[in-house]
Amino acid sequence: MKETVIEVLSRPKLSNPVLIGGLPGMGYVGKLAVEHLVAEIKARKFAELYSPHFPHQAVVEEGGLIRLPRNEFFWARQDGKSLVIWTGDAQSVTPEGHYEIVEKVLDFAEGLRVKQMYTLGGFATGKFSRAQPKVVALGDPELLRGVSSFGASVERRGGPIIGAVGLLVGLGKLRRIPGVCLLGETHGMLVDHRAAEAVLRVVLQVLGLNVSLENLQQRARETEQMIERVQREIVSREEMMKKREEEESWYIG
Amino acid sequence: MKETVIEVLSRPKLSNPVLIGGLPGMGYVGKLAVEHLVAEIKARKFAELYSPHFPHQAVVEEGGLIRLPRNEFFWARQDGKSLVIWTGDAQSVTPEGHYEIVEKVLDFAEGLRVKQMYTLGGFATGKFSRAQPKVVALGDPELLRGVSSFGASVERRGGPIIGAVGLLVGLGKLRRIPGVCLLGETHGMLVDHRAAEAVLRVVLQVLGLNVSLENLQQRARETEQMIERVQREIVSREEMMKKREEEESWYIG
Amino acid sequence: MKETVIEVLSRPKLSNPVLIGGLPGMGYVGKLAVEHLVAEIKARKFAELYSPHFPHQAVVEEGGLIRLPRNEFFWARQDGKSLVIWTGDAQSVTPEGHYEIVEKVLDFAEGLRVKQMYTLGGFATGKFSRAQPKVVALGDPELLRGVSSFGASVERRGGPIIGAVGLLVGLGKLRRIPGVCLLGETHGMLVDHRAAEAVLRVVLQVLGLNVSLENLQQRARETEQMIERVQREIVSREEMMKKREEEESWYIG
Amino acid sequence: MKETVIEVLSRPKLSNPVLIGGLPGMGYVGKLAVEHLVAEIKARKFAELYSPHFPHQAVVEEGGLIRLPRNEFFWARQDGKSLVIWTGDAQSVTPEGHYEIVEKVLDFAEGLRVKQMYTLGGFATGKFSRAQPKVVALGDPELLRGVSSFGASVERRGGPIIGAVGLLVGLGKLRRIPGVCLLGETHGMLVDHRAAEAVLRVVLQVLGLNVSLENLQQRARETEQMIERVQREIVSREEMMKKREEEESWYIG
Repeated sequence: MKETVIEVLSRPKLSNPVLIGGLPGMGYVGKLAVEHLVAEIKARKFAELYSPHFPHQAVVEEGGLIRLPRNEFFWARQDGKSLVIWTGDAQSVTPEGHYEIVEKVLDFAEGLRVKQMYTLGGFATGKFSRAQPKVVALGDPELLRGVSSFGASVERRGGPIIGAVGLLVGLGKLRRIPGVCLLGETHGMLVDHRAAEAVLRVVLQVLGLNVSLENLQQRARETEQMIERVQREIVSREEMMKKREEEESWYIG
Repeated sequence: MKETVIEVLSRPKLSNPVLIGGLPGMGYVGKLAVEHLVAEIKARKFAELYSPHFPHQAVVEEGGLIRLPRNEFFWARQDGKSLVIWTGDAQSVTPEGHYEIVEKVLDFAEGLRVKQMYTLGGFATGKFSRAQPKVVALGDPELLRGVSSFGASVERRGGPIIGAVGLLVGLGKLRRIPGVCLLGETHGMLVDHRAAEAVLRVVLQVLGLNVSLENLQQRARETEQMIERVQREIVSREEMMKKREEEESWYIG
Repeated sequence: MKETVIEVLSRPKLSNPVLIGGLPGMGYVGKLAVEHLVAEIKARKFAELYSPHFPHQAVVEEGGLIRLPRNEFFWARQDGKSLVIWTGDAQSVTPEGHYEIVEKVLDFAEGLRVKQMYTLGGFATGKFSRAQPKVVALGDPELLRGVSSFGASVERRGGPIIGAVGLLVGLGKLRRIPGVCLLGETHGMLVDHRAAEAVLRVVLQVLGLNVSLENLQQRARETEQMIERVQREIVSREEMMKKREEEESWYIG
Repeated sequence: MKETVIEVLSRPKLSNPVLIGGLPGMGYVGKLAVEHLVAEIKARKFAELYSPHFPHQAVVEEGGLIRLPRNEFFWARQDGKSLVIWTGDAQSVTPEGHYEIVEKVLDFAEGLRVKQMYTLGGFATGKFSRAQPKVVALGDPELLRGVSSFGASVERRGGPIIGAVGLLVGLGKLRRIPGVCLLGETHGMLVDHRAAEAVLRVVLQVLGLNVSLENLQQRARETEQMIERVQREIVSREEMMKKREEEESWYIG
């Protein structure tokens, strides 16, 4: 694997599909929202993306199985719309890898004749708030008009948007595929089902999709527990690794 | 986008053009000077440069629009001179990327038959001074003679010049395109309109251009405010990111 | 050397060979186990792997000879089984390099018609324990059944497996070569002959190989002493290097 | 410049030449020794090496001229021997770049029919000593016999040799060009003319060259002063840079 590859498992018939993307990031907002959507509308997986720019790790699955880190593409027809959903368990470890992966996703989306793209994520405030999380929208002017009529506020200034969520819209613009980022306000340090619900609600409304948001909180709780468990294992492991690495750097004979 | 690309928007007729470059760096001296020049002489954009070696971020523009980080090329005819102006909002994140980007700029400049190059930047002293900022010149001997007669002092010894400003002149020399770096003395930590004015004044004089420097201070103030605002947002965001990254490094399943 | 290369020294006749791999890592469990196996069954070296993704160092061998860091492949026929053994003194320094090296190993294994793969390593607990070290197995479901009947416990959940040991099984799965990781419980900071013995015992039993484990402890002690000696030399050297590097970063003229 | 290039300035007639290499590193032992040799035997430059893997900097030369960081090749005929001398002001910033550069040097050396290679460097002890600096030799067994009869002690064990000095001998071995590293004992933090003299003396004796070592101490003193001066400039500059970089990482719009 010299470069990012997409393995196509089946070729669904899609009509002017909309791409919705969410990957691990701030508050797991994007990934959580998109995973909920996949489960609720029973979207079917039809492609997998592998990349040498992902971390050099194997992922342990249920039952002791091992696989590479990957991204996945699901499709569904829901309320008259064709949807392509992009999620996964990793982002690139280098800037150049980010560009390569997002370009491959855009090649794939073009082949599927994707007409619009919504990427979901979080923006961190570092504060806990009981108020309804704000959703900020950034991207294509026409799509911005759409989402702003469903409660997303258009951000008129500000810093960069880091990672695939912003790159997809930025690189998509060069190919004239309109896209918009929807970023939910979040503390940043916890899996945030309220921010995920807020961004997902905007997408559902703008696309006219009927999807229950009921189980989202339960899903977030499970994710949080899984992360906490893995984290405990990893912290001690990483301490070991760090010390080991220093030694290994010289132990080569 | 596997490598740096220049998208040409129009093909101006230029006669023995001079390239003037300034990118973000020490005290924003180069970028500020060049942006002022573009505005004052109403230079027109005719090309954009994109690169996978820029940070993997999208840039938020006025009105909530998103775009990739990029470099831009402007052209103008001013006081009988053809000018090509290179600026942008990013430099490469890797050494190899710096070489690739600067080579692409030189390919482009050769195609435009650029005859001379002036790159503008700052050199940091870490001190505030009320004196007129010194301008140091480095590069092609003949161009050095020119700029030294307008107040730039030729630096006869010293350390390396880091980044595109020096690489353009260094790589240009291998192609026999003479160039000179003009570096204005600056504290380094603040947007420095006085250093920008000092380096720009030298370029204007050596090329015989009549351009007002009046609004430069106002422009610097606006840039400073914009940076401060973004910085406040970013600092808290980065704290979140750092903690998140540690966790994300293991959360891949 | 633009990319990883495997230099084949001889072409052994192998019949449905099993690949067993162990490289430097946690507690040197994998490397120690595999080196013991090579010595005990008098496996013969038949290929060497070199890579520009290994550390940019030369390795000093007995007698003052110098060579590049490398991986090695040995073969043997033992108790009716054809074995290919992969070990070495380095892993890649970049994630992309890890992918490249493991793909080359898989190309090579496919050419040899390898039917199964066992990779050996350690998982660090940071604790010393007098109990028999646990062996955790992860990977192909059928191979998992095999190893679990010889005392390896199948890990049903958990974090990522970092490095070549997991990547080989993960990338091998995409090529339909079944593989399993056997990870021995270890403190992580010391060369651990007990964990190496535990993982090796599982492999020997599942493959029906008769190999003495008697000298493993002695081998571990020698490795530990060698590492300690080199470490003493290196620590003072590294302190020097760090200071030097800071200076060298500017001394380029 | 996508990859390392060697620009050949002239084609000297060489008969079974010996390559002697020394680059910036521990105590500047290698670079200082080789630069002294070049000056004393009036070796002539005949090639330059440029690489995108060098630091992304321009080097300021005497008189305010600018050039890229580079390596240089000199040749001479001295006491009946053809010599090729490799030195320069930079090493690669990445491991992969080190491999690429050294392979280009070996391609070049093969084209020149180089028969033997001596690389000079230092090994740091972190201690000052008044004793004659020890010279350690590592590499090809036959060349080791040669240098050991002139006072170099063959190191029979030890850690890795980092950088081009070891890689040239390691990669050269794969091409069957015999080489040896001569490493002079040095404190590591100061330009060390005594270690440079010690390693150079061995090379001169083994090759039967008559070269005065008288001016080496004076040359070392000048290098030290130059480094100190540049260092003072750089330290304050680097402090600025570090703070700036943090800010620039977000200032991209």
